[in-house]
Amino acid sequence: MKPPTNPLVRALLTDMYQITMVYGYWKAGKHNDDAVFDQFFRECPFGGEFAIFAGLGEALKYVNSFGFSDDDIEYIRGELPDCDPDFFKWLRQTNTDEITIHAIHEGSVVFPRTPPMIIYGPLGIGQMLETALLNLVNYPTLIATNAARFRLAAGPKKFLIDMGLRRAQGPDGALSGALYSYIGGFDATSNVLAGKLFGIPIKGTHAHSFVTSFASLDDIEHDEFVERVLFFREKIQKLFGLGKTNDGELAAFIAYARAFPKGFLALVDTYNTLKSGVPNFLAVAFALAEKGLKPVGIRLDSGDLAHLSKESRKMFITAIAEILIKNTLLLDGNDLLIAASNDINEGAIHAMNQQGHEIDTFGVGTHNITCQAQPAMGGVYKLVEINGRPCIKISENQIKILLPGKKTGHRLIGKDGRPILDLLIADGEPEPRPGERILCCHPFDQHKRVYVTPSAVRHLHICYYRNGVPTEEANKSIAEIREHAQRELASLREDHLRTTNPTPYKTALSESLFNYLHKLWSAEAPIDELS
Amino acid sequence: MKPPTNPLVRALLTDMYQITMVYGYWKAGKHNDDAVFDQFFRECPFGGEFAIFAGLGEALKYVNSFGFSDDDIEYIRGELPDCDPDFFKWLRQTNTDEITIHAIHEGSVVFPRTPPMIIYGPLGIGQMLETALLNLVNYPTLIATNAARFRLAAGPKKFLIDMGLRRAQGPDGALSGALYSYIGGFDATSNVLAGKLFGIPIKGTHAHSFVTSFASLDDIEHDEFVERVLFFREKIQKLFGLGKTNDGELAAFIAYARAFPKGFLALVDTYNTLKSGVPNFLAVAFALAEKGLKPVGIRLDSGDLAHLSKESRKMFITAIAEILIKNTLLLDGNDLLIAASNDINEGAIHAMNQQGHEIDTFGVGTHNITCQAQPAMGGVYKLVEINGRPCIKISENQIKILLPGKKTGHRLIGKDGRPILDLLIADGEPEPRPGERILCCHPFDQHKRVYVTPSAVRHLHICYYRNGVPTEEANKSIAEIREHAQRELASLREDHLRTTNPTPYKTALSESLFNYLHKLWSAEAPIDELS
Repeated sequence: MKPPTNPLVRALLTDMYQITMVYGYWKAGKHNDDAVFDQFFRECPFGGEFAIFAGLGEALKYVNSFGFSDDDIEYIRGELPDCDPDFFKWLRQTNTDEITIHAIHEGSVVFPRTPPMIIYGPLGIGQMLETALLNLVNYPTLIATNAARFRLAAGPKKFLIDMGLRRAQGPDGALSGALYSYIGGFDATSNVLAGKLFGIPIKGTHAHSFVTSFASLDDIEHDEFVERVLFFREKIQKLFGLGKTNDGELAAFIAYARAFPKGFLALVDTYNTLKSGVPNFLAVAFALAEKGLKPVGIRLDSGDLAHLSKESRKMFITAIAEILIKNTLLLDGNDLLIAASNDINEGAIHAMNQQGHEIDTFGVGTHNITCQAQPAMGGVYKLVEINGRPCIKISENQIKILLPGKKTGHRLIGKDGRPILDLLIADGEPEPRPGERILCCHPFDQHKRVYVTPSAVRHLHICYYRNGVPTEEANKSIAEIREHAQRELASLREDHLRTTNPTPYKTALSESLFNYLHKLWSAEAPIDELS
Repeated sequence: MKPPTNPLVRALLTDMYQITMVYGYWKAGKHNDDAVFDQFFRECPFGGEFAIFAGLGEALKYVNSFGFSDDDIEYIRGELPDCDPDFFKWLRQTNTDEITIHAIHEGSVVFPRTPPMIIYGPLGIGQMLETALLNLVNYPTLIATNAARFRLAAGPKKFLIDMGLRRAQGPDGALSGALYSYIGGFDATSNVLAGKLFGIPIKGTHAHSFVTSFASLDDIEHDEFVERVLFFREKIQKLFGLGKTNDGELAAFIAYARAFPKGFLALVDTYNTLKSGVPNFLAVAFALAEKGLKPVGIRLDSGDLAHLSKESRKMFITAIAEILIKNTLLLDGNDLLIAASNDINEGAIHAMNQQGHEIDTFGVGTHNITCQAQPAMGGVYKLVEINGRPCIKISENQIKILLPGKKTGHRLIGKDGRPILDLLIADGEPEPRPGERILCCHPFDQHKRVYVTPSAVRHLHICYYRNGVPTEEANKSIAEIREHAQRELASLREDHLRTTNPTPYKTALSESLFNYLHKLWSAEAPIDELS
């Protein structure tokens, strides 16, 4: 297994309290206690009712490479000068040889309370893995879910490009953003390094500075091609009754077409989209087509994108109908690509869908990469069992109550092939089986119960890491994970996926796990004495 | 100069369109044109009227290490198979030997339109630096500003700890988050690797799992210390009329006190803060004090933090007044530390200040590290001059209009030592001087002008990188930058810093730069023909 993509992902990437706690365990002789930790979240992000689990691959690489260097130990020792020197000897040789991880497949749809990862191993080591594991799945899960929501908003036929590198929270906020957006349903990224590291398709054309760097037609070499462009510009000006378009912009488009004769896509909003950019684009597009080269299209980066896309499309169609050239087949107004960028978010896509638009490709920056609608996923990592004894944390806030003990999750599938609910059962309970009637209990409300007779049952928790060794499952490619995510989304009932008032997908407990939880809860909750 | 902290920061960490654009420049023979790029932002984040410029140090490391490897070139060639092979030869040997960077000192307060960085050099190279430079200053500036706002909310005496690692957007979102929070005014971080890499103080105690891992007093070794703890617990129970506190929690506190006898800080909300956590803390605190060891305090992590802090403080004071031990001087109810964490944001601190609280230390996670209130900074990088010719981008949106041409910024300081406004002048104009009356113009409104006679003038743009070589200025330590930021904040008028309706700080143009901008704007803006 490869090391983590980012060399900064290592044992020392943790909260100080993990080290001080582990010293406490070590001093109390508890560091080798058998522990079980659940990694889970309590609420789906973005007001939705689903999430896409992501980050498992990098999380496993981190676990597999876990260990402190001499230098790390020296640093920690300097911070904790009063600790027993033997502790540092022990810490220096810690590894993950006794760690086992069960996880839901990366790219799966996941829901609150069913842990995407369950970590088994010695208390001390398991504890020290917490912070980095959360870091490595929280943001990936958040952005894969965000990307999936963009995909659902845009529909299956639109092309979605991540362009968030410059606005991301740090360099690998950008890299993991590109990767997990792709897994969530994007088609490409602008991020060249992400393309190289992960094999994601990369896309890019030019920026405004390319346009403004050309002042006039004197900035480019004159040849017959330029003559033809000027010829077509005149025709287009007449056709649409326009004044002169910007010469610097036209020069830039010509320069770009010379560089990418088969990939001419022009950014048209530097001066004025409909009065300069689109006419200039068309002038070059006609000249290219005349030479047998098919132009690609335009990018809009400001203004009312839906309106401008419709107006641009109309201009394409009108110009192509009116201005006759040879190779007409290379120009089709309905086929020219219209890409749009500039502050695009999920809501904006829904709004544009309602008002109608002609956009084929969305370039999404800030709102996707930083998950502006909710920039953090509240995933947690909790000790649920120690030496066979379940652990519970009572809270006045019901949502914060832990589901104690070792357990496994099963997705119960209905006749229509769609998931009905996720069922958690205690370790050792018989597994639910297709065709069998199963009582499924709401975790907290004893009166909310349902009988489910599933047509199929999917065992959710698969062993990805066994006693320090990654299993076969850990070899999935990014393409496989992306496909899995898209299949998962397609399998879910639409009312769970919708933006407005989505139906919560249920996670239920077996009767036995329900009783176990509530017995323990009663035993631990203090009873007030009033008088 | 060291390489970037994150090895993933390299030339390939860029948008694809930078490469395609540069190919366009190269094909047009423009790649060596003399270019000037301004890096700036248009609006301060968080609805405020100031920002703290940060990220310059890492940005310079990136520029200084810029270059493509053979492997990088192979990757790009694969993506652009139709490009001229000579282009890749040129690209392989590009470097930043002709790049010069003027910048405002890192840690300075900065305002819209005055560029924190100005990049001079060949068009092709300057263009390729854009994306990574923005990535390396956008989030740092955002989070340094966010941290400064937390500091202003909490006041100068509170201790602020970054605890955001698990919720950060990627591993170095967390690392740079820790660093730039510290620069913005935080005192410490929980992030051990950030501590090691940047020399930031690190802090940490224990989590709920430490508490829940102890089931009862049988989990710890019994000795005289435990006897004394139990003795004090009984006294405390009687004093406050409480039922039995949680034994597992008490065992955990004893174990933690044994590990950190001089650093006993207990997380008190696992079962019930006032009925179990605080009494258990006090029992251990008394037993420690009796042995001559000074306990530190408690951490609250749920519930109404302001209320619980006040109640806890009252219990400390009452218990210490009522239960007499030797070494009483080691226990002072007003001196025991109360730390609070759990979803703390700027608004919550202001609200707690209003209702009154006894919190000494704030542990801030999600809201600081992800800048939840506004997770992205809209910093941009624009070509403003090429071969001595100013570049302008017209926009229907006034805020998006570029200030064209080479220019420098000056901060005009008033009699009271506080900044009055920032003045941008065109290259070659005489510099403003103390005691001289200067006409300062609003960039867009010709009727908004003011005469300023500054008592002092600060030249804002300092050379940090000259023709491929970092200058002396680039050697500032993190401590120096942090101190500079705190001095800068202290120098600013309070009405610029406040949360509600802050007064905008002005960036003005010299008369000559104003006229230059508006002449150019008129020349480039298309005039519609209506009939």
